[in-house]
Amino acid sequence: MTDLPQGSTIGILGGGQLGRMLSVAASRLGYRCHIYEPGAAPAGDVAYKVTTAPYEDEASLRAFAASVDVITYEFENVPTSALDLLESLKPIRPNRRALAISQDRISEKSFLNDLGLQTAPWAAVNSEADLKAAADSLGLPAILKTTRLGYDGKGQVKLDDAAAIPAAWAAMNGAACILEGFVAFDREVSVIAARSLDGSVACFDPGENVHRDGILRTTTVPAHLTPAQRSDAILLAARILNALDYVGVMGVELFVTPRGLLVNEIAPRVHNSGHWTQAGCTVDQFEQHIRAVAGLPLGDGNRYADVVMENLIGDDVLRVPELLKARDTAVHLYGKGAPRPGRKMGHVNRITRG
Amino acid sequence: MTDLPQGSTIGILGGGQLGRMLSVAASRLGYRCHIYEPGAAPAGDVAYKVTTAPYEDEASLRAFAASVDVITYEFENVPTSALDLLESLKPIRPNRRALAISQDRISEKSFLNDLGLQTAPWAAVNSEADLKAAADSLGLPAILKTTRLGYDGKGQVKLDDAAAIPAAWAAMNGAACILEGFVAFDREVSVIAARSLDGSVACFDPGENVHRDGILRTTTVPAHLTPAQRSDAILLAARILNALDYVGVMGVELFVTPRGLLVNEIAPRVHNSGHWTQAGCTVDQFEQHIRAVAGLPLGDGNRYADVVMENLIGDDVLRVPELLKARDTAVHLYGKGAPRPGRKMGHVNRITRG
Repeated sequence: MTDLPQGSTIGILGGGQLGRMLSVAASRLGYRCHIYEPGAAPAGDVAYKVTTAPYEDEASLRAFAASVDVITYEFENVPTSALDLLESLKPIRPNRRALAISQDRISEKSFLNDLGLQTAPWAAVNSEADLKAAADSLGLPAILKTTRLGYDGKGQVKLDDAAAIPAAWAAMNGAACILEGFVAFDREVSVIAARSLDGSVACFDPGENVHRDGILRTTTVPAHLTPAQRSDAILLAARILNALDYVGVMGVELFVTPRGLLVNEIAPRVHNSGHWTQAGCTVDQFEQHIRAVAGLPLGDGNRYADVVMENLIGDDVLRVPELLKARDTAVHLYGKGAPRPGRKMGHVNRITRG
Repeated sequence: MTDLPQGSTIGILGGGQLGRMLSVAASRLGYRCHIYEPGAAPAGDVAYKVTTAPYEDEASLRAFAASVDVITYEFENVPTSALDLLESLKPIRPNRRALAISQDRISEKSFLNDLGLQTAPWAAVNSEADLKAAADSLGLPAILKTTRLGYDGKGQVKLDDAAAIPAAWAAMNGAACILEGFVAFDREVSVIAARSLDGSVACFDPGENVHRDGILRTTTVPAHLTPAQRSDAILLAARILNALDYVGVMGVELFVTPRGLLVNEIAPRVHNSGHWTQAGCTVDQFEQHIRAVAGLPLGDGNRYADVVMENLIGDDVLRVPELLKARDTAVHLYGKGAPRPGRKMGHVNRITRG
């Protein structure tokens, strides 16, 4: 295992709040970060360098690769052509396979099922006829999603009855889709798992997530899980990372159901549901990711506090003056400017028991 | 109290590790930092902007002031001429009086004594004759220091007997000096105190410091103090900040002696002996300083863990590979390149009881 010397530069594809917090974590370990981001880059406020260029700009991609020692990413929808070029120039961690799988819901479900893991029942949908057949076979309600590019509730629609099928299909504009059967789950938890270059795996304690309008609102640790469920969740996450020869942090979202744990989704990056680790662990998910990507040993991610992480979405930031005065409360703002509905503006970690 | 809106820019004079950690803290609150530093600037790796220019460069100082909303500093020896210019353009927090007092050991001691606080016995020394007279009156051993610009053991010499006086005086090259009488102290502690724009004061729990070769090696919390000593230390620090109408974080170094607490030194900035707050508090000294400077309310600095902070000086960084694997240990590296003897390369916070 070769570790990146201090003073090395880590390239990060994507300049949002995840890149911002990754860059800060990298600085703690003596590294610099170079952000590549086509749009506005809150991460640029705390980065050594920022390249503002589209992912189609080959010259900028080459210059970026030349200036960094290793490349990672804060979001999974980087175009394949950009990745092809970058991969020929510098190591990309986590690897392309993890990205390819998580970029496509059908690849993801197939990969998980092949590993012997449970998911929601699903069917590929490429036409209105497919959708009718899938609805018949899986039953309704079900959720129709584009196979690619959806996040935070975008690109998906809930189907409650067969009458809604034509409109739902029309809304997808001919995109390749997947219909996911309804899962009656008790709760949703996620495991933030890390794997180092030498294959060690370490998982943070699972957090319990509450979503609203398809967007994560809170993560609470500890989650309501039996000891057996907790160890199942962690083993299952480790199996995914090992199968992918993964290097870095991954978010693994799970449904807790009467028939066991189902994998909802995997995200090959630091994850919103892991923000609580900033207040509850000696080494947080951001530093854990940087350690893995840099070839360093994983750090001590044991949980020492109970924490509730709450996202500040849109006008939630108006509560900041009050939150700044609250006890046991760490406020994290992303420097994004004006709030918009649905926009993640920051988050708060509240320690509920130290 | 007017608070700085998110997205505002805080100017920081000095680009060392303190500026680096201040910039990171500012980003958590949605602010950008612009660093002004004549030399190498580790803070630049995580800053929005860096100006590399001498403090004598009026045009650069003006451009810097024009680009920021408020100015603070990470070290107290900024030349007066630069401060005069900057102060005419933008608010400087903490204020000039705090800077002026702490820049000169005689002003500092006089200010503290006038406040009714104890210090080491001292005398101003401007000639070899002064030094002889002072040694007679204070007794030896004693410590001869330049009144200005000394830190980390530089610009000072211990006088054990009168025979050493001519050489000691000669070594000072005619600089204005102070002779400080020897203090038989039980221990050295420091209080990291913060005062907001509206005059609220909050102090972190005192830490106990161990120096070697004039450089801080470790700070341990809790310090060995009786409850009365602890509250005396905090009240005394608060008195200093109030007397100066101070805004920001100050480090107040104290000697614990049989005849009470003596003030050794005050530093009008975040302080090395406050680095433990990164591991033991919801809001650390860096964020507390930024909050004060930005006109925000002070945060919850209550201590929730026992911590030992250890500085990594010179070749201590060779221990980093081992430290990265240690339990309950947070490693902070400053990105300074090659280690040199006496150079602060990073620090480690070890939680000893959570």
